[in-house]
Amino acid sequence: MAGNHASSKEEMVAQFLDSAARGDVARVSAMISHSSSLLNESGDNGWTALMLAARNGHFEVAKTLLEKGCDKSLINKAGQTSLDIAIFWGHKHIVQLLDNAKSGGKHWFLSSITDEHENYFGRALLNRLSEKRTDSKWLKSKQCCPSTVYILFSNLNPLVTSREDEAVSNKPAIRLCRLGLESVKGLLSLPGTTLIFLGVEKQKQITSPSTLKDGDDPVAWFALSVDDVPIKQIRQQHVNSYYLQPLMPGLLKLNEEEAGVVAQARSVLAWHGRYSFCPTCGSKTREDEGGYKRTCLNEDCESLRGIHNTSYPRVDPVVIMLVVHPDENQCLLGRKRVFLPGMFSCLAGFIEPGETIEDAVRREVEEESGVKVGPVRYVSCQPWPMPSSLMIGCLASAISTEIKVDQNEIEEARWFTRQQVVDVLLKGNQPSFSMPPRQAIAHQLIRHWIGVNANL
Amino acid sequence: MAGNHASSKEEMVAQFLDSAARGDVARVSAMISHSSSLLNESGDNGWTALMLAARNGHFEVAKTLLEKGCDKSLINKAGQTSLDIAIFWGHKHIVQLLDNAKSGGKHWFLSSITDEHENYFGRALLNRLSEKRTDSKWLKSKQCCPSTVYILFSNLNPLVTSREDEAVSNKPAIRLCRLGLESVKGLLSLPGTTLIFLGVEKQKQITSPSTLKDGDDPVAWFALSVDDVPIKQIRQQHVNSYYLQPLMPGLLKLNEEEAGVVAQARSVLAWHGRYSFCPTCGSKTREDEGGYKRTCLNEDCESLRGIHNTSYPRVDPVVIMLVVHPDENQCLLGRKRVFLPGMFSCLAGFIEPGETIEDAVRREVEEESGVKVGPVRYVSCQPWPMPSSLMIGCLASAISTEIKVDQNEIEEARWFTRQQVVDVLLKGNQPSFSMPPRQAIAHQLIRHWIGVNANL
Repeated sequence: MAGNHASSKEEMVAQFLDSAARGDVARVSAMISHSSSLLNESGDNGWTALMLAARNGHFEVAKTLLEKGCDKSLINKAGQTSLDIAIFWGHKHIVQLLDNAKSGGKHWFLSSITDEHENYFGRALLNRLSEKRTDSKWLKSKQCCPSTVYILFSNLNPLVTSREDEAVSNKPAIRLCRLGLESVKGLLSLPGTTLIFLGVEKQKQITSPSTLKDGDDPVAWFALSVDDVPIKQIRQQHVNSYYLQPLMPGLLKLNEEEAGVVAQARSVLAWHGRYSFCPTCGSKTREDEGGYKRTCLNEDCESLRGIHNTSYPRVDPVVIMLVVHPDENQCLLGRKRVFLPGMFSCLAGFIEPGETIEDAVRREVEEESGVKVGPVRYVSCQPWPMPSSLMIGCLASAISTEIKVDQNEIEEARWFTRQQVVDVLLKGNQPSFSMPPRQAIAHQLIRHWIGVNANL
Repeated sequence: MAGNHASSKEEMVAQFLDSAARGDVARVSAMISHSSSLLNESGDNGWTALMLAARNGHFEVAKTLLEKGCDKSLINKAGQTSLDIAIFWGHKHIVQLLDNAKSGGKHWFLSSITDEHENYFGRALLNRLSEKRTDSKWLKSKQCCPSTVYILFSNLNPLVTSREDEAVSNKPAIRLCRLGLESVKGLLSLPGTTLIFLGVEKQKQITSPSTLKDGDDPVAWFALSVDDVPIKQIRQQHVNSYYLQPLMPGLLKLNEEEAGVVAQARSVLAWHGRYSFCPTCGSKTREDEGGYKRTCLNEDCESLRGIHNTSYPRVDPVVIMLVVHPDENQCLLGRKRVFLPGMFSCLAGFIEPGETIEDAVRREVEEESGVKVGPVRYVSCQPWPMPSSLMIGCLASAISTEIKVDQNEIEEARWFTRQQVVDVLLKGNQPSFSMPPRQAIAHQLIRHWIGVNANL
């Protein structure tokens, strides 16, 4: 009987999805009235009814599904939302329908601009409260607060735990271990420990009011680096915890909010690790301002007179660009020797002193591939905590097409047609190469180009 | 007689300018046929005929002047080009006419975007040829080449000379001393000297073929830092030379090309000055790769295993933003205590580790002024060699209006109406405050906002 029931449910889902895909709005409505649990069901490759309607341009079906309360944020196995699909297939009305909430109240001068794209590592869960970094009394009180969250790092690898429900949902596969004061108390005073104040949660989130002593104060987060400390005592409380190693690709399996916190914490910790001596005089330095400053211990050091960047964390701006062929139907991708076999990605390189973003794009593309670039347009950016880059993502228009690769920089560079790229994105037609995952800005730049070319 | 002649010339110029201002295309044409030298003449406040035509929307006059070969790049005393003026007054056809050359061959996906704006310090005169930095033989040969240009710095101040024709033209008031090998030979081997390979000129520029020994090779540029060396021997060849001090505002009087070279050279030299010790182990370091690397002299240092940013020049990304009021008719400007009395500018701040450009804008604006920001749009960027920042310029839409200044950061912040800003830009109506000069990206962001609001 259970088997029959499952089968009949499966059949109903299949019929529902088929109705949505065909644009049969009457049947879709009727089935939802009968069983509203159908709304967010998915079939092959994780496609929901809304995705199928978005794919085939069935506006009324999409509208009905949304009115009935379906979840438009779901993604299919290719990582696409319904909006992504509507953009990709160029169904403007459905794009507007799905994108509705985001466009309200926008200034007209921004209206021609696509919405700000948030990349992985880019979400700000915390308010950094930088003005509190010099308030050591406040910081101390936050350190001792029962609601405070500590995240641990060892050799720049975060302490994480695997989710048990990994197999049954497309939720992130790992999450950070969020420790309380009791778990880290013994570690705070150990030598070689670095403590960073990350900020407070933007949304008040009082988990257990009875244990709170600081009233309505928002929850503070600290990062704690405890190189070479045995993990045993942590494990007693967090059974499945481990330091994530190797870091990649595991780090890309966090949820967006935890990824943003890790980007901040790991970049600052990496700076402390590499910059513990004063670059101006070679003396030792001490940690200050909640982990956002290092002060030289040599009283005569020039770095103590005035403000110098030697005392503050470093952020390295990098340009990463999708170069578009003059025919507008091909894009330039390259591969480094260290890439997985068959993988191609956008070109990229560090911005040099005295250089603009746009000139850095032109220089790097010509150096690496021999292709000359004209106009450059900024699209979005991504913090990349390996160790502390800011990836500035651009579209670039090629004004020459001949490729001449600098073998020291990359192994190969090629023009790929729009169709080849689409095949890889949709994982159909036996794609001949692979691209970085959706968490990489390179992937998002390519999607952006495809979306733009869909004539939106 | 000379006096009479001058007077008659002045009269003719006045009549010519008046005809252009009134839109009398026939008279303008006739006068040019009679005396083509009129084309680029200017009257009150440096306004040319083209500017007056652009101001008053006389398309045919502007077209005629351009066809006859007038110089559309000239600026008036307020620093405006004819294009600026046409944009400001909203004469779209004239904007298109003046902007024509730049729009050709642009990708359609870039066409809704205003042209890439080049800020002061942003022009790239040189091709950096970064692949040559590891070719010490090639570098050595370039150092000895008679055509090679050396520019000198002492304590990060460039050696410059004042132009004699300052009073009679609106050309830049100072220029770099471009020294040859003979002038610097004695300095190259001095202790404490730092030599940076800047690149080669993008356009071949063979000044004196007979003295060239390297055939068609482009001219190479080096920066040489010679702290505390007497200037006497240089003065023998360059009579009016001096190290620019104080640096500001003198540094803003270079031409655009020399400003770009100084931005590159000064940033790299400042890095050498502040980073002569290894931040990872405190040991001394040596200069490498044409001045673009410092290598730790301690064989056991971790910085020698793998690639680390400790060995490479630092670039600090900064956000600078014009915040626009929800009514779209006011913008937010603030002043620091160190500003000249009455001066207001855009808010700005360093991008932190793990932060996007857009979030840095929102954080800095809220921290400094209490105003909340919604959408953010990138406009243009500017290298700022004090010592090595990359100013990333944005427009930001305010979603709140109450100002609450952080007195540690700025002294005052205020909403200014479009009219107030226009008065300052045009230096009319006794402006009640001042803004940074045109060489600052803050100034250009404000102009950009005004231009955008002119409904282009």
